[in-house]
Amino acid sequence: MPDALRVGVAGLGNVGVGVVRLLRSQSGLLERRCGRILAVAAVSARKRDRDRGIDLSGTRWFDDPRELAADDGIDVVVELIGGSDGMALAVVEAAIAANKSVVTANKAMMAVHGTRLAREAERAGVGLAYEAAVAGGIPIVKALREGLAGNRLDRVYGILNGTCNYILTAMEETGREFDEVLAEAQALGYAEADPGFDVDGIDAAHKLALLTGLAFGRPVEFDSVFVEGIRDVGAIDIEYARELGYRVKLLAIARTTEAGVEQRVHPCLVSTDTPIAHVRGVFNAVVAEGDFVGRTVYEGRGAGEGPTASAVVADLVDFARANGPPAFGVPAASLYATPAVPMENHVGAYYVRLMVIDRPGVMADIAAILRDENVSLESVLQRGRDPGEVVPVILTTHVTVEAGMREALRKIAELEPVVETPLMIRVEPL
Amino acid sequence: MPDALRVGVAGLGNVGVGVVRLLRSQSGLLERRCGRILAVAAVSARKRDRDRGIDLSGTRWFDDPRELAADDGIDVVVELIGGSDGMALAVVEAAIAANKSVVTANKAMMAVHGTRLAREAERAGVGLAYEAAVAGGIPIVKALREGLAGNRLDRVYGILNGTCNYILTAMEETGREFDEVLAEAQALGYAEADPGFDVDGIDAAHKLALLTGLAFGRPVEFDSVFVEGIRDVGAIDIEYARELGYRVKLLAIARTTEAGVEQRVHPCLVSTDTPIAHVRGVFNAVVAEGDFVGRTVYEGRGAGEGPTASAVVADLVDFARANGPPAFGVPAASLYATPAVPMENHVGAYYVRLMVIDRPGVMADIAAILRDENVSLESVLQRGRDPGEVVPVILTTHVTVEAGMREALRKIAELEPVVETPLMIRVEPL
Repeated sequence: MPDALRVGVAGLGNVGVGVVRLLRSQSGLLERRCGRILAVAAVSARKRDRDRGIDLSGTRWFDDPRELAADDGIDVVVELIGGSDGMALAVVEAAIAANKSVVTANKAMMAVHGTRLAREAERAGVGLAYEAAVAGGIPIVKALREGLAGNRLDRVYGILNGTCNYILTAMEETGREFDEVLAEAQALGYAEADPGFDVDGIDAAHKLALLTGLAFGRPVEFDSVFVEGIRDVGAIDIEYARELGYRVKLLAIARTTEAGVEQRVHPCLVSTDTPIAHVRGVFNAVVAEGDFVGRTVYEGRGAGEGPTASAVVADLVDFARANGPPAFGVPAASLYATPAVPMENHVGAYYVRLMVIDRPGVMADIAAILRDENVSLESVLQRGRDPGEVVPVILTTHVTVEAGMREALRKIAELEPVVETPLMIRVEPL
Repeated sequence: MPDALRVGVAGLGNVGVGVVRLLRSQSGLLERRCGRILAVAAVSARKRDRDRGIDLSGTRWFDDPRELAADDGIDVVVELIGGSDGMALAVVEAAIAANKSVVTANKAMMAVHGTRLAREAERAGVGLAYEAAVAGGIPIVKALREGLAGNRLDRVYGILNGTCNYILTAMEETGREFDEVLAEAQALGYAEADPGFDVDGIDAAHKLALLTGLAFGRPVEFDSVFVEGIRDVGAIDIEYARELGYRVKLLAIARTTEAGVEQRVHPCLVSTDTPIAHVRGVFNAVVAEGDFVGRTVYEGRGAGEGPTASAVVADLVDFARANGPPAFGVPAASLYATPAVPMENHVGAYYVRLMVIDRPGVMADIAAILRDENVSLESVLQRGRDPGEVVPVILTTHVTVEAGMREALRKIAELEPVVETPLMIRVEPL
């Protein structure tokens, strides 16, 4: 087995703690997937003695993250300090200068300095990865850079700020005004005390600048992004939009036209027919349209400790897998043949349609059979009465075991007034 | 620049032709993205003289695709012959034996022989890629294998057969029965003359077997998949489901439980609240739930020449990029600074809310200003009348230039009865 990949984490806010927690709790899984250990070799943050809910006693500590970045005991530097310049940028530059690959979640830094940093990383022959900088846990950077690499992309757009989408969704659902919903979002932790970065569209614009560079092979150019936030959208506008067949969403849109590239972030009326209109609450979504693939949509959580850590670790896994990933994610010899569960053991709720001759006593017979097989009814639906004629009877059940359900339906099918094989469709809680 | 990646395409049905067409039409883009040329070095199919709409006169031809697979002039073999065994399998085995990486779109072969082929490819030190075998153009194999590699996945499910989803969507929209809609789908080319493979759930089960292996690090085990198709679902069931708050979808579901792994394909009632319920027509979608990332959703076209070729070429790009992909998809030196379009030049439709004192003549003044700026009104909405009071007036425009729209609103804001700054929201056609 190759040596461990020694990861240095600079910055121990929520995301940094999440990355350490993920690397530790999934250590066995990651070792199987990468063929080597991903080890948290060192960390750095401003205050050493703060309680972060993780044990750092056995982990090397650096007061200065630039020293961590340059240290010989580190293979990859994870920058989670934040801010477009200052210490975050210094750490990334120090890492590249020391010939180390960098993983960052820093959209502001990448939106402003991304092209230059990419050039320096290439010159040093190291990687620069930023999956966590755009749309949190959604692997959209990978999808655009690799999954859709055969396509000329014409348009990429999405909901890139969960705070704005939460506010607009809540305004729509409750009819309340922006200020009131913002205050609630702040109380719930979905919005910062200083919300301008989110609600004025700047955060979405940083992410859009990165998507534009990636989608169109163009230098990242944050200054060219038109930005308008959601403060002026009133409850009345959301209501009128609904009457017109639209929802209001803060979209970030990048598009190639004959004149060049458009980059814009602003509230939009979007038809309720579109997938993006159905993205609710704090979720993010990105739509990428390619000339061969057509429209593809990616949805997931755009922020938070877990989703962001997931994206950071995906980048680390890429660096750890020297020879590309194995066909099934782990080497064939590491595939575990866990047991396959037979369908008879399936546990779930059921929708059943019976075609029954409408006569007294039939329901009692059916109910008795279901009871004997431990199937508990949730609802019985028979529209109207038509004595002596065949009518549909719709049953829905509470959660039960499939074997019992099948046995009950076998017996019900034998009842004389039941004239067709019962149809059973499973109710899937998603 | 490294040597060209010499691609051999075995099988020239729709997808094979699509792959050749894509590699040719995007040759410049692919060269920029990979740092080398992706060349169609040879092809093979059963009939040489058939007109396929592409020029193969300068391309090496093999009557026997096994010879193509073994030829020294080929670096990567693309298997697009189809079928779980027979020639397709022989070609893949010949390619691995000759130490060549393989790209395949063959779900049936991979579902039955995938684990063994992966083992043989690893032993030979070559790649085995099958992005096109699951959900067409959606880069879901990459998302699970790499993008979500930091997560323990608990459940992966989706709509994996576009024919079934088309039929169920059409039944829902028109109230017609399965047989009638199937006949229509066959006439439109969305269903095969022999539809069993699709409507009986076998195609979805092949894809599910691959997703299960990938998501759970488990040998691919097609025989363990429970399969039930959609033939028995009646229009009446879709209607009753709607009344109960559900849609009927053919889902393929893989889930880990304490007892082991469930793999099942069957019609499901799914709540209209869920993203999967909104996937319409021939589109596919996959939902992957991870312990850190939460729920992620991937949607796109699951079949067809373009989407499938897009997935095949994504795999080829992975093989061509020896040192991993550059940060922005192309090396920093290859980023083109195409012009950035200023927002004043944006062309689109607008929603405008004016707060206006309700008095005669206001609308005439507003309409005149809009006309002078070449803004054409689509609708004007004023709910009720309230002379002398402030009322909202909602305008929607036809497509126009933003500079004119802004100038019109600047002038409208100066009208005496207009009491607030007009609110403008762009209508985004998606």
